[in-house]
Amino acid sequence: MKVTLNRFSLHGCTNGATTNRAVFLQKLKNISTFVFDVDGVLTDGNILVNETGEALRQFNIKDGYALQLAVKKGYNICIISGGKGKAMEKRFAGLGITDVFLEAGDKTILFKTYLKEKGISSDQVLYMGDDIPDLEVMKLAGIAACPADAVPEIKAVSMYVSPYTGGRTAVRDIIEKVLRAQEQWFDRRPDAADSGK
Amino acid sequence: MKVTLNRFSLHGCTNGATTNRAVFLQKLKNISTFVFDVDGVLTDGNILVNETGEALRQFNIKDGYALQLAVKKGYNICIISGGKGKAMEKRFAGLGITDVFLEAGDKTILFKTYLKEKGISSDQVLYMGDDIPDLEVMKLAGIAACPADAVPEIKAVSMYVSPYTGGRTAVRDIIEKVLRAQEQWFDRRPDAADSGK
Amino acid sequence: MKVTLNRFSLHGCTNGATTNRAVFLQKLKNISTFVFDVDGVLTDGNILVNETGEALRQFNIKDGYALQLAVKKGYNICIISGGKGKAMEKRFAGLGITDVFLEAGDKTILFKTYLKEKGISSDQVLYMGDDIPDLEVMKLAGIAACPADAVPEIKAVSMYVSPYTGGRTAVRDIIEKVLRAQEQWFDRRPDAADSGK
Amino acid sequence: MKVTLNRFSLHGCTNGATTNRAVFLQKLKNISTFVFDVDGVLTDGNILVNETGEALRQFNIKDGYALQLAVKKGYNICIISGGKGKAMEKRFAGLGITDVFLEAGDKTILFKTYLKEKGISSDQVLYMGDDIPDLEVMKLAGIAACPADAVPEIKAVSMYVSPYTGGRTAVRDIIEKVLRAQEQWFDRRPDAADSGK
Repeated sequence: MKVTLNRFSLHGCTNGATTNRAVFLQKLKNISTFVFDVDGVLTDGNILVNETGEALRQFNIKDGYALQLAVKKGYNICIISGGKGKAMEKRFAGLGITDVFLEAGDKTILFKTYLKEKGISSDQVLYMGDDIPDLEVMKLAGIAACPADAVPEIKAVSMYVSPYTGGRTAVRDIIEKVLRAQEQWFDRRPDAADSGK
Repeated sequence: MKVTLNRFSLHGCTNGATTNRAVFLQKLKNISTFVFDVDGVLTDGNILVNETGEALRQFNIKDGYALQLAVKKGYNICIISGGKGKAMEKRFAGLGITDVFLEAGDKTILFKTYLKEKGISSDQVLYMGDDIPDLEVMKLAGIAACPADAVPEIKAVSMYVSPYTGGRTAVRDIIEKVLRAQEQWFDRRPDAADSGK
Repeated sequence: MKVTLNRFSLHGCTNGATTNRAVFLQKLKNISTFVFDVDGVLTDGNILVNETGEALRQFNIKDGYALQLAVKKGYNICIISGGKGKAMEKRFAGLGITDVFLEAGDKTILFKTYLKEKGISSDQVLYMGDDIPDLEVMKLAGIAACPADAVPEIKAVSMYVSPYTGGRTAVRDIIEKVLRAQEQWFDRRPDAADSGK
Repeated sequence: MKVTLNRFSLHGCTNGATTNRAVFLQKLKNISTFVFDVDGVLTDGNILVNETGEALRQFNIKDGYALQLAVKKGYNICIISGGKGKAMEKRFAGLGITDVFLEAGDKTILFKTYLKEKGISSDQVLYMGDDIPDLEVMKLAGIAACPADAVPEIKAVSMYVSPYTGGRTAVRDIIEKVLRAQEQWFDRRPDAADSGK
């Protein structure tokens, strides 16, 4: 596990890796809500454009497993994307995710409204984004996280940079970290019978 | 060839690599049946979701060659997946695989039923999985194996971790190992005329 | 940032890296117009051929973000490709790109005509290509650039070889370099409110 | 350029790299005909299976450029594949390739018949394959070549192992080598006007 703690963190951490790591682990325990961007986070950032102009995306099954588990455990999963498409809607519905905001204009306004309606405070929220449209809104989240291939501007405001890239289990990685910190990941007892299916 | 032998093996092996390798090679000779998960094993774990919500998967032709050869040589090939879709059914039918269980709920029950109906003992079975839904059932197989990019929990119970990733010839690799151990791989005599087509 | 400056540059630079870099940075300030090849530049050079023979391409969302920003800032974006297809047309239209020339025969003639009609001089133009059909026309541009996986012939005439490959943010990289040189990239002031959405 | 010359070559070469390389370069000059397998050679060996069971393949544009050039220069291009599909037929037709044999059973018989009908001797033929169905037939060709990710059995009989993998310009690489050896590659004079479009 590689925990990359950023020197320019906006979260008041000192530069010491030990201190920051302790802060990060503490913050993980507060999270009740995940907000995910789609392109570059839940996908590798590529779209396959078909003859009708529809953009098809690749999703990762290991990410899907973690998302389903988080839903089952009662976490809020919120998707905010500037993109659109029936395919995305179907994928998220299939995973049991209901808070899906596509064709999002200003992500910050959406984010604030969502928290207000849900009655969630910002320190309960982990936001994973990868590119500039996520930059301002990420600063508002309790934990800002990003995939290994996020742009430098996003890494600069992220408390946690996953060793995994977008669409290649970065989402699985961060969900697992939160659920483990809260002893909600399936294998809190290695030999337990809860197989997680 | 990289044989990764796990220190926490459930198979009664000692920690010595030599002993374990000998045990592994001996176990390979017992295998008559392969059980494969689909996503992350026969594929790279990504699905391309189209406008109708159908998940399209990429399969590997080198894996396909080995699967066809194993079928022809009389091995049982069993596919167990939580996924579904016409595309998967067509792919496996095209390879001559008849024991295909999609939309699987509890893989352990399915596995036990399958062995009972076929009259196979567990030490005859090699199971390759990659993620938590495979964890409990893999413990029941004579050989538990996984691709290089399986999750840590699966690697921890696998006797063999392939150097190849899912959908990128991990399946070919393990089939070849079994068939070679049993002198059923095409090139038991390097210059033989059986070209394997 | 890796700036690869070619010893055989056609642009009159000396071999000294410092001098060349200074020349390169100066030239970046002149650019008002980007010309992009499609296959291998805006894509990874692979096409997925479907049953009707249509070639489907993968485009990158981070490239898309940079293209949209450049359009919004008033830069000319010109696409010249020997390929064709409704999917490409739809993708570029969706990004607000209007100067799209598909099924291009001689790229040099097209290029010259385009510059003449737009009233642009060649030193205002950055051309990014990756393969031999781009070779002659690239020599006419103020800056010739290419992705990391361009063919050697193209690298030999490129002033800038991106560290990123085609379809994997090489386009984003070069657009960002130009816009930064001209203080048009979103984060000219790191804490500014212009989130770039 | 990495030229991997195999110690167990079937072509009568001595083991000395210099001698072999000289032999290889000499053999390149005899080639008038290319035979290519599809899966794993002209593609990366993966197929995307859609709902109707059709296998869709990814082809590389840089490979396509070299194939088109070879056709234009009068070389025979012959495709032999065990696979099938309208998409493949359309792709090859689009490149001007007419000798396409899909759903091939015994590749050796097909190969011999093809040479006889065309009046070609085996030393004029370069065959690039990647897997066991190509093994016997490759031994009959003047030059046996393979992509970097061919199976070990194929590498063992290949005079040339490309540094590039299947579907990722291995085909471009070998065509370029032959055409350069015969001074037919576009840039025999670096500044020539024949842009190769």
